[in-house]
Amino acid sequence: MSKSISIFDTTLRDGTQGEGVSLSADDKLKIAKKLDELGVQYIEGGIPGSNSKDIEFFKRVQQLGLSAKITAFGSTRRKDSKAEQDGNLKRILESGVQAATLVGKSWDFHVHTALQTTLDENLAMIYDSIAFLKQQGLEVIFDAEHFFDGYKNNADYAVSVLKKAKEAGADWLVMCDTNGGTLPHEIHGIVTSLTSLIPQAQFGIHTHNDCELAVANTLSAVEAGARQVQGTINGYGERCGNANLCSIIPNLELKLGYECIGEDRLKQLTNTARFVSEIANVNMPVNQPYVGNAAFAHKGGIHVSAILRDSRTYEHIVPELVGNKQRVLVSELAGQSNIVSKAQDMGLDFDSTSEHSRKVIEKIKDLEHQGYQFEAADASLELLLREAGGEMKELFTFESFKMLVEKTAGRAVVSEAFVKLNVAGNNVYTAAEGNGPVNALDNALRKALVQYFPAIKEMHLSDYKVRVLDEKDATAAKVRVLIESRNINQSWNTVGVSENVIEASWEALVDSMRYALLGQILQASEPEAASPSQGLVNH
Amino acid sequence: MSKSISIFDTTLRDGTQGEGVSLSADDKLKIAKKLDELGVQYIEGGIPGSNSKDIEFFKRVQQLGLSAKITAFGSTRRKDSKAEQDGNLKRILESGVQAATLVGKSWDFHVHTALQTTLDENLAMIYDSIAFLKQQGLEVIFDAEHFFDGYKNNADYAVSVLKKAKEAGADWLVMCDTNGGTLPHEIHGIVTSLTSLIPQAQFGIHTHNDCELAVANTLSAVEAGARQVQGTINGYGERCGNANLCSIIPNLELKLGYECIGEDRLKQLTNTARFVSEIANVNMPVNQPYVGNAAFAHKGGIHVSAILRDSRTYEHIVPELVGNKQRVLVSELAGQSNIVSKAQDMGLDFDSTSEHSRKVIEKIKDLEHQGYQFEAADASLELLLREAGGEMKELFTFESFKMLVEKTAGRAVVSEAFVKLNVAGNNVYTAAEGNGPVNALDNALRKALVQYFPAIKEMHLSDYKVRVLDEKDATAAKVRVLIESRNINQSWNTVGVSENVIEASWEALVDSMRYALLGQILQASEPEAASPSQGLVNH
Repeated sequence: MSKSISIFDTTLRDGTQGEGVSLSADDKLKIAKKLDELGVQYIEGGIPGSNSKDIEFFKRVQQLGLSAKITAFGSTRRKDSKAEQDGNLKRILESGVQAATLVGKSWDFHVHTALQTTLDENLAMIYDSIAFLKQQGLEVIFDAEHFFDGYKNNADYAVSVLKKAKEAGADWLVMCDTNGGTLPHEIHGIVTSLTSLIPQAQFGIHTHNDCELAVANTLSAVEAGARQVQGTINGYGERCGNANLCSIIPNLELKLGYECIGEDRLKQLTNTARFVSEIANVNMPVNQPYVGNAAFAHKGGIHVSAILRDSRTYEHIVPELVGNKQRVLVSELAGQSNIVSKAQDMGLDFDSTSEHSRKVIEKIKDLEHQGYQFEAADASLELLLREAGGEMKELFTFESFKMLVEKTAGRAVVSEAFVKLNVAGNNVYTAAEGNGPVNALDNALRKALVQYFPAIKEMHLSDYKVRVLDEKDATAAKVRVLIESRNINQSWNTVGVSENVIEASWEALVDSMRYALLGQILQASEPEAASPSQGLVNH
Repeated sequence: MSKSISIFDTTLRDGTQGEGVSLSADDKLKIAKKLDELGVQYIEGGIPGSNSKDIEFFKRVQQLGLSAKITAFGSTRRKDSKAEQDGNLKRILESGVQAATLVGKSWDFHVHTALQTTLDENLAMIYDSIAFLKQQGLEVIFDAEHFFDGYKNNADYAVSVLKKAKEAGADWLVMCDTNGGTLPHEIHGIVTSLTSLIPQAQFGIHTHNDCELAVANTLSAVEAGARQVQGTINGYGERCGNANLCSIIPNLELKLGYECIGEDRLKQLTNTARFVSEIANVNMPVNQPYVGNAAFAHKGGIHVSAILRDSRTYEHIVPELVGNKQRVLVSELAGQSNIVSKAQDMGLDFDSTSEHSRKVIEKIKDLEHQGYQFEAADASLELLLREAGGEMKELFTFESFKMLVEKTAGRAVVSEAFVKLNVAGNNVYTAAEGNGPVNALDNALRKALVQYFPAIKEMHLSDYKVRVLDEKDATAAKVRVLIESRNINQSWNTVGVSENVIEASWEALVDSMRYALLGQILQASEPEAASPSQGLVNH
């Protein structure tokens, strides 16, 4: 049997069923790009036609030119109707995908209770829907909902569902533990029997974490012959979540010798997990296996001294294999290669062995300790590296800002900001209102800068995220603000951290404008404020 | 083989190795009492003599008269010395426990690298230490550290370690997967072979979650013959944590037919998990299996209509078996059946066909269109439904608030808030500073309310999230603020939406306090501000 496993990511569809997970079309496109870089084979994008976000996603994702196959999700046709006339199937075709994931019932109880139809009609619904999409040239992945509960209740019927799907031309037969209540040894037994009952089929597995066994159940199915694994980044999903690909992929690659994304791309795992958690605005548990901040952190004194002697003493793998790093109280040595490669990307002369580079890396590490995160704030990192390289001039000299929000019963809330700066030798003092405090600050800062840097008119803020870093004392805790800005050509991300959300916003706001005006504040350029035509440098 | 499993809880020892977990002696005593009520057989309290907290704990726990056996943790004697003269063993005896957990090396690599002694001396250290404590009348649980790594590297030596411990009189031989890198099928094979190699012994299992397999590994060991399970509440522990008893216990009781704490006490599981998370001051992931707030939460519209028809359709167990409950998340997708079931949960007379109910549902849908999201803000929804039912009095009459943030070059940022209210007929005007704007508002609002509602002191904000709703124009867009608050017993969530993040925060803040003081502002209660003793109503 082949040792190669197809990874099917459903973060963008099943993952969004998780409580607190909500993704815009832009968010989905960013995540799809990241998943493609990680090397997953399938990216399930959503349910075409269920909402405008998904329609937009399927349209725009085609322009990204990804290697992964994009798949659209839908149910088998409605009972007592024709596949050709089914609205959902039609919308899958219209979405322009190469592959469709069709979900059908395999538990007789559900056919009666949820569908309220006959067992035969359910088989016909499955056959017709798959055959129809196959005729249209799509790859079809059949998700057999509640397969294991169905098998335990009525094995003959559950098996006949998969046989019917295969007969209709389904490329993959995926067994779903929809309610997450099945145990690893049960999964192993059932998948083993299926691989011998339908020997020519390709099987997949889709599990949920209701018993804290989704990862184990997935491994069990793979050991029994499944060759496609469905799951989500960080295990997002309804109730207790879906199977967590961030644990499954390294378990398969490093422990069981299967090939999924390859050991080279495995190094992007931690970065991908953190990126997705940032975009989804869901805090990552520090103790998350493989990719969590504490996954290779050592606290106990004895452990630490043994770890320093030989890391195998208390680490099951070398953390760098998944792009994570060991954390001990003494010193943190990882991450440095990322920074070096980043600097080289920007064309900076940055040698990891030099005294200068060592200091910059120390500074970045120190900022990370304070709560900064540069994984989702490339522009702030670039400013920092260029600054350390002595390339940057000040955009302005800061004197003060004030921000006032006032609400009186029966009247609309008012936000005002006052900014005092010295720009190109001139004292500037501006006041502006806004729809909210950050908008007021943004307006006052623009007002102060625009006559010296007219290019600022071409950019605007496009996303704003706030994350509380230490949840123990929420309103007195540190917050991290991420701002995304764009102009007609590109978008960039900046970060600010403070106990004060307004101060953190100010910091990210200023970085955003510095980056937009980078062409004018690099030392190489003219000492005078440059002309607006110089505009943005491209990266 | 017996179907009864001993539960050994090490939340108070190994659990405190987790990042962010720190327990005082008082905390430990409270948790020990709670664990005893849950019915665990062993409570490992700490390391006697390692610090003053643990000394105090062992002294005071004896006065609680618990049914569970309290055990103290320590290492085997130092190399090349006598057990009778070993400080650590002496302190175990002095702690007054009936049982000791002794950890010893079983991986030859560790004997050489960490202990830096010979394989024979390690066996002698194990034998002497156990024999010494047995002579003193203690029950001895032997934890074989790194047993599975040891077995894979040098099976003969790992087995000889367990045999030596048994020979010295150890009551339990516990195989530890210290680094968390072993897979379920490996655990099953190794434990099976051990039970036949040392047939008279009682075996235990201690796993870590580095591969997200700690629960599966524990179940594998039990299926292979282990009869003691070591783990922690909520899986707290070093790196990725220890095996999570909150998942293992229901899996053993409800899925595999083992008796651990009994089905009656199993109903306290959710409450215990939340209590420990509160004392440990670590937020519980909403998606935690069995006991999490979202473990039985349903979001998708099709799921919800099926769930209301028959809960088995999308639930693997009845949530009440573990003391949890079904939650139907309100969202546009799911519609009115969700709201009706929610209102009925609160004991409200809410008939979906009445004109009144129709209006309330319209109002909720309208708020959702404006950006409110009630699926993660149960408390705001409850306030809204109760208000619509005419049950609520005003907590106060709002007059105004002002919020000022000021930053001057070279000085720390300052946040101040000013709140003007009428509370119970009295004009109140307060001012307060804070670490940030929301903290300043929280402080000023508390100051205004505390003399009329002293119960407000018992609650605090525990999480704060901000989401921009329309990303196209970020700083002028609507924002949604979600606030989580908690007191010793429970947590609740509220929501606010506005173009102004400060106004949205104010709204969620006020709802949070109204919910905390619900007992005092329901119409049924006295017209005057109620006494602090009335406290929170329970839901």
